[in-house]
Amino acid sequence: MTPEDLAALARRAAEAVEAEEVVRLAQKLVQIESYYPGPGEEPVVAYLEPYLRELGFRTTVQPVAPGRPNLIADVGEGPGGLILEGHTDVVTHGRLEDWQVPPYAGLIREGRLYGRGSCDMKGGLAAAIVAAATLKRVLGEPPRTLRLAIPCDEEGLMTGIKAFVKAGYAEGFAGAIVCEPEEMEVCLVQKGAMRVWVRFEGKMAHGAMPYAGVNPLPAAAWFVGRMAEVQLWLQSTPDHPYLGKGWVTPTVLEASAGEGQFNVMPGHARVGLDIRTNPDHDHARIRRMLEAERLECMRSFPGVLVELEVFEDRPPTQTDPAQAVVRATEQALSLLGMPVCYGGVPGATDGTYLWAWANLPIVTIGPGGRRTPHQANEFVEIDDLVAAARLYTAISVLMLYKD
Amino acid sequence: MTPEDLAALARRAAEAVEAEEVVRLAQKLVQIESYYPGPGEEPVVAYLEPYLRELGFRTTVQPVAPGRPNLIADVGEGPGGLILEGHTDVVTHGRLEDWQVPPYAGLIREGRLYGRGSCDMKGGLAAAIVAAATLKRVLGEPPRTLRLAIPCDEEGLMTGIKAFVKAGYAEGFAGAIVCEPEEMEVCLVQKGAMRVWVRFEGKMAHGAMPYAGVNPLPAAAWFVGRMAEVQLWLQSTPDHPYLGKGWVTPTVLEASAGEGQFNVMPGHARVGLDIRTNPDHDHARIRRMLEAERLECMRSFPGVLVELEVFEDRPPTQTDPAQAVVRATEQALSLLGMPVCYGGVPGATDGTYLWAWANLPIVTIGPGGRRTPHQANEFVEIDDLVAAARLYTAISVLMLYKD
Repeated sequence: MTPEDLAALARRAAEAVEAEEVVRLAQKLVQIESYYPGPGEEPVVAYLEPYLRELGFRTTVQPVAPGRPNLIADVGEGPGGLILEGHTDVVTHGRLEDWQVPPYAGLIREGRLYGRGSCDMKGGLAAAIVAAATLKRVLGEPPRTLRLAIPCDEEGLMTGIKAFVKAGYAEGFAGAIVCEPEEMEVCLVQKGAMRVWVRFEGKMAHGAMPYAGVNPLPAAAWFVGRMAEVQLWLQSTPDHPYLGKGWVTPTVLEASAGEGQFNVMPGHARVGLDIRTNPDHDHARIRRMLEAERLECMRSFPGVLVELEVFEDRPPTQTDPAQAVVRATEQALSLLGMPVCYGGVPGATDGTYLWAWANLPIVTIGPGGRRTPHQANEFVEIDDLVAAARLYTAISVLMLYKD
Repeated sequence: MTPEDLAALARRAAEAVEAEEVVRLAQKLVQIESYYPGPGEEPVVAYLEPYLRELGFRTTVQPVAPGRPNLIADVGEGPGGLILEGHTDVVTHGRLEDWQVPPYAGLIREGRLYGRGSCDMKGGLAAAIVAAATLKRVLGEPPRTLRLAIPCDEEGLMTGIKAFVKAGYAEGFAGAIVCEPEEMEVCLVQKGAMRVWVRFEGKMAHGAMPYAGVNPLPAAAWFVGRMAEVQLWLQSTPDHPYLGKGWVTPTVLEASAGEGQFNVMPGHARVGLDIRTNPDHDHARIRRMLEAERLECMRSFPGVLVELEVFEDRPPTQTDPAQAVVRATEQALSLLGMPVCYGGVPGATDGTYLWAWANLPIVTIGPGGRRTPHQANEFVEIDDLVAAARLYTAISVLMLYKD
């Protein structure tokens, strides 16, 4: 197929997307509550699995935890294909009185779909599903695999995508589109994150007799102070054009012998760190720096035992712009007359593990505002949903039908 | 009366103390639960008020809070008298499984009375009551007032003794004996205490976007670090012979946006300080130092509002050894062949406010170990109870019958 034929095919498939179908599916998904703890993701999978099967997809339900399955759905067969990714879990609605619309009604008003998950990311997921379905409807089975990866638990510890990658479901693909709400910007970079507990163990004593114990609080305070130095080092590299600076943010500080125990010097303290990194920051080096601070803390506060636990380590990601999936995304945007803007993902997504664990080139692009997720009155523009479905269709054609 | 006659009178009265009466009363008081929140002090007052009235005391019940009365009982009349002081509240028994004896049975084993409050300080209170009753029984109405001050809430915010002093019940006396368990040492000094909240207000933000807020944690940590300097200054004075050093102990450190909110930078943090001082430490100067640190903290962490609340301020106390109540205590110990040892009170007691607010010379001396209070299996030696009752009788005679 000549490049011109391929472009024409992509445009034709994209134009076949039915706006109503995208809206109806996005609305339906919003109406199925899937926060956790709570209903979990199972009700969404229970709806989507037969829906996709009837459309001719080959479906697999991968159990991850009780009530928390991944859904995998394929059309076509053959290596070098494309993954379209969208998670099914949403964050809690929080306080209902903060909502001016019911969070799970799937209300449409003035061109917007409202509700929890409409933006993050049932809207993007619906667009991906309709894209894949449209491609199949218009072009039949593609010559390479188009896989819908629909995992659970992105908002938590990302156990869904981790299980997906570990089971080999990401192998053999040429790339993935992560359909997170990024205002339709082409995001080739994504921040990394480390979550760290630092625990300080001293010896409890009466507040009137501090000499009878070892106070862990000054050690914890010292450690927090040192984090400004680590951040300074992190920020000594030039700001990333799309991700800005790296950050070391203490978010939790806890030391108390219990409610009202004002005159008791507690035996324990802990500090929680939320570290955010750019692709030029080496997590192993950050670990070594934290470890050095830990040792220095123990030297400076004799009798205090300091322990460090990096309980989550999400690397930053950076996709080579020369990758086929990037070029296909840029080309599809142009074909459809959409602006080609570049951006960066400020947090971690399921794409983190597709990139870091499965070594897959990823592009994160999807409908909805970056700052809209996790808030009350969450919404997504319906025009953006339809545009995203068309875009995903075009990208899929460009990836699956190229020579 | 010649000094020899006075000494003989004191010895005669002290020898008239009936050991059985002291033990029976202490045991009875232990059997009446009076922790708070819980039964409160009312049941003890309901028992003691008619008990003392029948013995010929003039009694007053002073309500302090619902279920929390003070009891005041006098014999004799006339200025320059003596107060014997003992609170009725006890701390909670805590976990019952930690006790090898029932905490409110008033069990006597191998010369010890066991139970919550036996040491702190129903034992001392019983000794004081029996001392006053014995004096009245043997010598009739004394020529100066002997007042039993029996307040509530010493273990809390000392609202009982504060109300007692504010109502003028401490006026016109030459001194007070505080019957706290101090191993029968003559304590003329007592540590002061300041309890301080330092609150740090920043601006909440997503952990991935700390630049969108103001983190109060580094400011709180900095403040904790500075407290080492304030303590250093406090300890630059020579150690007190009975009280040792002054201490500035951070005991509470709190900053969190809520359970599990690891990637949320909280808007608030707070630090609790338990400061313990000696008589040569000026609390006003400590307040000025903390205030200076507060201002420096706001300069160092722009955007963080720091507030300081000294919510309890108990001055250290120091009684002039030349005071009559001190000389009477020393003489009474000698008269009864008991060792004259000096000591210091490591915490604050009701005596703090008798000294600081009522300007009363106080001696803190009583039966029981300093480290025994507030623990499981609390006990007091019965011999010590009886010795204390004799001592309080002798001191009372020396104070009330001197020319």
